[in-house]
Amino acid sequence: MGKNKVNVNPDAARLELFVGPGFKLANIDPSSTPGFEGSNGDSKEIAEQIAKERTPELADLQERMYAQARAEKPNAPSVLVVLQGMDASGKGGIVRHVFGSVDPQGLQITSFKAPTEEEREHDFLWRIEPHAPKPGFIGVFDRSHYEDVLIQRVREFAPPAEIERRYGAIVEFEQRLVQSGTKVLKFMLHVSPEEQEKRLRERIERPDKHWKYNTGDLDERALWGEYAEAYQIALERTSVANAPWWVIPSDKKWYARLAIKAILLQAMRNMELEWPEVDLDQEAEEARLAESAKLLQESLERTQG
Amino acid sequence: MGKNKVNVNPDAARLELFVGPGFKLANIDPSSTPGFEGSNGDSKEIAEQIAKERTPELADLQERMYAQARAEKPNAPSVLVVLQGMDASGKGGIVRHVFGSVDPQGLQITSFKAPTEEEREHDFLWRIEPHAPKPGFIGVFDRSHYEDVLIQRVREFAPPAEIERRYGAIVEFEQRLVQSGTKVLKFMLHVSPEEQEKRLRERIERPDKHWKYNTGDLDERALWGEYAEAYQIALERTSVANAPWWVIPSDKKWYARLAIKAILLQAMRNMELEWPEVDLDQEAEEARLAESAKLLQESLERTQG
Repeated sequence: MGKNKVNVNPDAARLELFVGPGFKLANIDPSSTPGFEGSNGDSKEIAEQIAKERTPELADLQERMYAQARAEKPNAPSVLVVLQGMDASGKGGIVRHVFGSVDPQGLQITSFKAPTEEEREHDFLWRIEPHAPKPGFIGVFDRSHYEDVLIQRVREFAPPAEIERRYGAIVEFEQRLVQSGTKVLKFMLHVSPEEQEKRLRERIERPDKHWKYNTGDLDERALWGEYAEAYQIALERTSVANAPWWVIPSDKKWYARLAIKAILLQAMRNMELEWPEVDLDQEAEEARLAESAKLLQESLERTQG
Repeated sequence: MGKNKVNVNPDAARLELFVGPGFKLANIDPSSTPGFEGSNGDSKEIAEQIAKERTPELADLQERMYAQARAEKPNAPSVLVVLQGMDASGKGGIVRHVFGSVDPQGLQITSFKAPTEEEREHDFLWRIEPHAPKPGFIGVFDRSHYEDVLIQRVREFAPPAEIERRYGAIVEFEQRLVQSGTKVLKFMLHVSPEEQEKRLRERIERPDKHWKYNTGDLDERALWGEYAEAYQIALERTSVANAPWWVIPSDKKWYARLAIKAILLQAMRNMELEWPEVDLDQEAEEARLAESAKLLQESLERTQG
C-alpha cells in the first residue's frame, strides 16, 4: 500500500493552513487535503494508518509533560487546544479520534454550551478561566470563548462595541496562558455547506444519530455567510505566532483528524519535553526497599498473630 | 494462536472475585487468573487481543449512555468505577488501558490525593460528592472515599468510632448514587508484596519512572498486614449487591485489565442501554433542511454583496 510514498507533511500543511497576514478563509477549499500526498482510492485507510503510527510518540510526549507536573517541576507546561466549527463539522470526532489516542488521565475536556443565566451575568471569560488546563494536562475546548465573537456577533447578542472589546480581551487572556506555560493551538474545522447538509441529513435519518440533531442548527446554517464573516474577523484578529489558528479542511474527516494530530505532534515535539529530573538517591532508596521486606514480614506476623 | 480456545469467562470471574458473604482477601492469589482459560506462554498477547475485540461493544454502550443524557432523558444512567489498591498495583494502567479505549468525552476521571487542609475541615465525603459522575458519564475514581477507612484506619488519623461511622456513611452515600441512576462498581487491585517490590524497584532504577516514585510508599508498604486487615474490613462492610466490590488479582497486569474490562462490559450490557427516543418529525426536518439551502444561498449573497 505504498506506506513510504504517502505522508502528511506538517510543514506544508502548517504553512498553507496557518492563519497569518492576508489569510482569507474563502481561499481554503473544505474538501482539499493540503500536505497529504499520494491521494488515491485508499487515502482514508492510508491516513488512518499514518495517524495510528503517530500515536505512540504523541502518548510519550503527553506522559513526559504529565510527569513534569507530577514531579512538581516549577512552571510545568500544558497544552490548550481550541476546537471551533459549524455544527456537524466534526469537533466530537476530533476529540474521540485524536485525543482518544492518548492517556485520558492527562486530558481535560470541556464542552461549552450556551451560557447559563449566571454565566451571562459575568464577563464572557469568567466561565472559561476555571477550565484552563492544569500544568501537565492537554486541555481541549469543544467550542470556547470564541462563541462570544461568533454566534454573539452574528445574532447580535452583544452590541458591536462589546464584540470589538472582546477580540483584544481574548488575545490578552491567551497571552497570559502562554506566559504561564500553556501552549495554545486553535483549530477551525472548515466544512462546506454541502457536506454539512449531508451530515445533518444523516442525523435526521438515523435513529442512532437523532440525539445529535438539534433543529436550531438549521437556523444557524441559514446564516452561513454571516458566520463566514465572523470567523474571518475572529481568525485575523486573534491568530498570533504563539497562539495560532489553523483552518482545517474538514469535508474529509480522515484528513482533519490526521492534520490536527500532525500539527499537535509537531507542536509538542517543539516543546522539548524531557523526563523530569527527580532528586532521588537511588542507592539509599534501594537499601530502604530491601529493608522494607523485613518490616513487611513483621507487619504480617503482627496482624496474623 | 487458538483464539477460540481461550477467553475470560466473566461469570466465572465474577463469582470467584466478587466480595460476598464469607469472602476472605487472604484466599485470593494475586498471581492467579480466574476465569481465564488456556493460560500458556502467550497468555498476555491473547488477553490483549480479547480486550481489544471488546472495545467496540464497550464504546458503543458508552455512547448510548452518553446519548441518553444528551437527549435529556430523565434519570439518564451513569457508571461510577472505584479503583483502590496498594501503591504500584496498577490503577493508572487500568485507567489508561481500559478507560482509554472509550470516548474521552464521556469520561470523568478523578484522582484523589491526600486531603487538603480545607478538605480535612469537612466531612470525608464533602470532597467526593462533587465528582460523582454526571448523567451519561463513566466516572472513574483513582483512589476514593475508601482512603478514609484504609490509610486513615491504619495510620489512626481518625479515632475508631469515626472510622466505624464511615462504613455506614459510605454505604448510604453509594446507595443514594445507585438510586439516582448510577451503576457503582468497585475494584481492588490485589498485588503481592513481591510484585510490588519489583515495580517499586523499577521506579527507582528507571529515570523515566522516577516521577512515579514516592519514598513514602515504603512506609505504607511496611504496614502491609495492617492494610490487608483494613481492606478486608472495608470490603466486607461495603460490598452490597448493587454496589459490589471485586478483588482483582493484579500481579499480571494483562489479567487485571482484561478482568475489569469484562466485568464493566457485562455490567453495562445489563443496563440495557438503548438509543434515546428523540421526539423528531423526520419529514418536517427534512423539509426544513431542504429549505435551508435556499436561505443559506441568500445569506451568501447578502454577505458577499
